[in-house]
Amino acid sequence: MPSDEEQIRQIVSQWMEATRAGKVDAILPLMTEDAVFLIPGRPPMRKADFATQAAAQAQAQAGQAAPVIEGRSEIQEVQVSGELAYLWSRLSVTVTPPGGAAMERAGHTLTVFRKEGGTWRLARDANLLAPVQK
Amino acid sequence: MPSDEEQIRQIVSQWMEATRAGKVDAILPLMTEDAVFLIPGRPPMRKADFATQAAAQAQAQAGQAAPVIEGRSEIQEVQVSGELAYLWSRLSVTVTPPGGAAMERAGHTLTVFRKEGGTWRLARDANLLAPVQK
Repeated sequence: MPSDEEQIRQIVSQWMEATRAGKVDAILPLMTEDAVFLIPGRPPMRKADFATQAAAQAQAQAGQAAPVIEGRSEIQEVQVSGELAYLWSRLSVTVTPPGGAAMERAGHTLTVFRKEGGTWRLARDANLLAPVQK
Repeated sequence: MPSDEEQIRQIVSQWMEATRAGKVDAILPLMTEDAVFLIPGRPPMRKADFATQAAAQAQAQAGQAAPVIEGRSEIQEVQVSGELAYLWSRLSVTVTPPGGAAMERAGHTLTVFRKEGGTWRLARDANLLAPVQK
């Protein structure tokens, strides 16, 4: 039986793999129904909005002029207490449109996970990624 | 005896009051020794860096050409489990230099608190404030 920390790290791996593959249906079960995503300069995003946006992105990825999306997450810390856990990581995402220049965004994320019926899920996420100046 | 949630809300009030008054010594005991502050486009800030930066800011506030700093925090949620808690809020900070135009930054924060020896302290903080376009 993997430890709480191992289970949480596994969610991050599954999330990134599903994002890369454009599999929205594989991402949604990894978050709580009341999940909230916080991003600079935008209103909080809920699960339904996340699903809509991720589906649009997946469709674009599947198109002929699909950009190549590469993400890299370096987990800095995972701490667990009872039914709550937090994780912070350094994340970098590079998007390369066909024939275009790569655009990189990098920065940190602070994420809260909640254990529901024995399963850890992402509950709250703050995404601080900013464009990288080359 | 105030509840865990009440104690955590009290920390936020004390923090904002001490910031307004430029009292760095009153802020530092409200965070853990290993506190980490995450901000877009910058490396993670630790407690020692926070203290240095806050002291410089307090000195500027005490000067003759002191800007007026006004902050407003609307707590959206506090959840506690065991020795961990998280809080997210909508925060707005307005800085008005003497004779100058007010500059407002607004957005959300996601904060993790840890209970140490019976006392809640801020442990990890993601600050997603962005300039407000007027």
